[in-house]
Amino acid sequence: MALANGQFHAHAPAQPPAPVPRRIVLLGATGSIGRSTVDLLERDPEGFSVSAVAGGRDVEALARVARAVRAEFAAIRDESAYAALKAALAGTNIQVAAGREAIIEAALRDADLVVSAIVGAAGVEPTYAALAAGRDVALANKECLVCAGVPFMRKAAEMGVQLLPMDSEHNAIFQALGGEDPSRIERMIVTASGGPFRTWSKERIAEASVEEALNHPNWAMGPKITVDSAGMMNKGLELIEAHHLFGIPAEKLEVVVHPQSIVHGLVAFSDGSVTAGIAVPDMRTPIAHCLGYPDRLTTPTPRLDLAKIATLTFEAPDFERFPALKLALEVLRDGGGLPTVLNAANEIAVEAFLDRRMSFDGIARHVAEACEAALRDGTANAPATVEDALAVDHIVRERSRSALAGRAASGMLLQ
Amino acid sequence: MALANGQFHAHAPAQPPAPVPRRIVLLGATGSIGRSTVDLLERDPEGFSVSAVAGGRDVEALARVARAVRAEFAAIRDESAYAALKAALAGTNIQVAAGREAIIEAALRDADLVVSAIVGAAGVEPTYAALAAGRDVALANKECLVCAGVPFMRKAAEMGVQLLPMDSEHNAIFQALGGEDPSRIERMIVTASGGPFRTWSKERIAEASVEEALNHPNWAMGPKITVDSAGMMNKGLELIEAHHLFGIPAEKLEVVVHPQSIVHGLVAFSDGSVTAGIAVPDMRTPIAHCLGYPDRLTTPTPRLDLAKIATLTFEAPDFERFPALKLALEVLRDGGGLPTVLNAANEIAVEAFLDRRMSFDGIARHVAEACEAALRDGTANAPATVEDALAVDHIVRERSRSALAGRAASGMLLQ
Repeated sequence: MALANGQFHAHAPAQPPAPVPRRIVLLGATGSIGRSTVDLLERDPEGFSVSAVAGGRDVEALARVARAVRAEFAAIRDESAYAALKAALAGTNIQVAAGREAIIEAALRDADLVVSAIVGAAGVEPTYAALAAGRDVALANKECLVCAGVPFMRKAAEMGVQLLPMDSEHNAIFQALGGEDPSRIERMIVTASGGPFRTWSKERIAEASVEEALNHPNWAMGPKITVDSAGMMNKGLELIEAHHLFGIPAEKLEVVVHPQSIVHGLVAFSDGSVTAGIAVPDMRTPIAHCLGYPDRLTTPTPRLDLAKIATLTFEAPDFERFPALKLALEVLRDGGGLPTVLNAANEIAVEAFLDRRMSFDGIARHVAEACEAALRDGTANAPATVEDALAVDHIVRERSRSALAGRAASGMLLQ
Repeated sequence: MALANGQFHAHAPAQPPAPVPRRIVLLGATGSIGRSTVDLLERDPEGFSVSAVAGGRDVEALARVARAVRAEFAAIRDESAYAALKAALAGTNIQVAAGREAIIEAALRDADLVVSAIVGAAGVEPTYAALAAGRDVALANKECLVCAGVPFMRKAAEMGVQLLPMDSEHNAIFQALGGEDPSRIERMIVTASGGPFRTWSKERIAEASVEEALNHPNWAMGPKITVDSAGMMNKGLELIEAHHLFGIPAEKLEVVVHPQSIVHGLVAFSDGSVTAGIAVPDMRTPIAHCLGYPDRLTTPTPRLDLAKIATLTFEAPDFERFPALKLALEVLRDGGGLPTVLNAANEIAVEAFLDRRMSFDGIARHVAEACEAALRDGTANAPATVEDALAVDHIVRERSRSALAGRAASGMLLQ
């Protein structure tokens, strides 16, 4: 039966239907989100045309993706990889470029939607360039908002662009919100799987190995995000992101631990109603939501079967065992430039952990120290522009690197 | 922090803000939903003015409600109660009337929203009158859509009125939908508590007493709905309602048993995303949603605390132990006038059960027999108008009454 009455159409999103094929720019094409995006694009060659793909340094992977989605342009960040990429794409019509400027060029290629899936602070500049050029952006990169949330959102509003959250949690909340007025939101709840250390003691977490931290129970993600997830720093970064994305103050943001990762985010309204975004953990679902928005794609992702799942459990987060989450919440409440500092120091500390130069519990400790230092010397002042934020990011990274390198040189595992 | 960017406002519902005070007509003011509605209206005397209240036969309760919400008009269905209601409201400015026409008059009083909370088929005529007069309707009465869904929805579309579902399940789905295009809906899932007999054997359910059937684990509702809920006929009626309300075909409608009654309804989309409506079981939440829509009221209802609830469970429904649900699904698939027949026969059978003239498992059996009889003699043809539907309803009731009365006269409990 077709919809007999017009009432639901009356409050459907006001966007015009997406043009077909939709032109896509894919930044971060060779990472975890990039590969899932490519999987969806490959399945729907009629629905999408790819103006550009960009990657970091994996020439073979980028060339494979560029061919698979028949991209017009492939950009690689590593300048020295130009010749190899050119060779790998010989015999195709795909244009090739390399270096920082090439990634920006990719971001500015003609597109209906720019998928921002570069991991880390490296994603900020090209994403901001796309935004400033008026492109709608599907945002999988956390650092754009964590490191430069205020100027980033200001530019999005100024350009009137649509910013679609691709993270499973924010995407769930975006869907749960359904375009409703944020002033009636009482609480916004992000769920956390709890990661591999959910049931571990504080002492055992402190000594966790790289392998243990990378052993995430639900999600297959890149190593940086997986380590963040193990210490729940990831969830802290997501709260900061949600704060900017949805304009929700820190005191209305909550985390609930939900080991099954089926409910991803919830919005609680002033009348007691709660709406939630739910899906089987598969990044292709939120990615497909963004690629199709405001329409919906039909995906091959697994479907929710609640009777089969049978049980969903929820727990309060433990700030004692997961100090990174507490720290991120404090940083969010304090505001200013602290989130930028937190993010930069965390990225370097996670690097040190992955390089086995630092203990797991050293990560949160190093980040806390970096925040304190930044508060003392003014580095934590609110950055007015994305450039300012990136400058703070750069300073904090350098500081963290030298602090951690110096101590590593002493030969002991950093605590 | 105020919302920095305008993007979410861009897809906010297009309705104009609700006028203050909102004028409300409350039909079924003395029942369970009516009392919860009054509780909310009383708390917000600035926000609402009540044009009319209507009740069945409880003079004292209706007079109390009329005074509490300072109604302009009070109508009672029982004509013989006129003098008593008049006396009970002496010394107020509240106009009084009695009888079937008085209820219609109440439905047609000037209003921004008519709350339709009369239980049973008696609610159809006044609700339809309000709809036909172009009033927006908050619908708690199931029978409007179960008994006369097609003509009812046709009129709603014709008049361009907003039909807001007040049932917790449909309200949850309405909120989960968020105005999205129903063509991308893959499945619509209504949850069921499973009622007091969820874990009982078929044999034990067959012999359940009235007290056992009325002992609902989660919801305090009227006796008719509570008995429907015990046999899961209630859920069947809700699927029929959802079919009409949201324009969703029978094969996309599902039931999942969820004993905690926290998740009330879910919408699964073609991209694998699922949105859900969630709330602590308290009818004031969906009622408040309707009263405030498209804005939100602030209510005193209990707030969702997932960490405290800790566990949500889900099971597939058991059609063997709950044949009423299976029957309702078959009736929905067959379409035509069968839902009208099912509803009328069920109402009389539940009456007989509550009067201890019928066994619990006799209810579904009687309804199945009534449907078969109606298929044989043409009573089950699709009713073209609400009048036709009410005529079928009347015929089936009379038939059921005489069938059940005849057998009851034999002195044995009906099987």
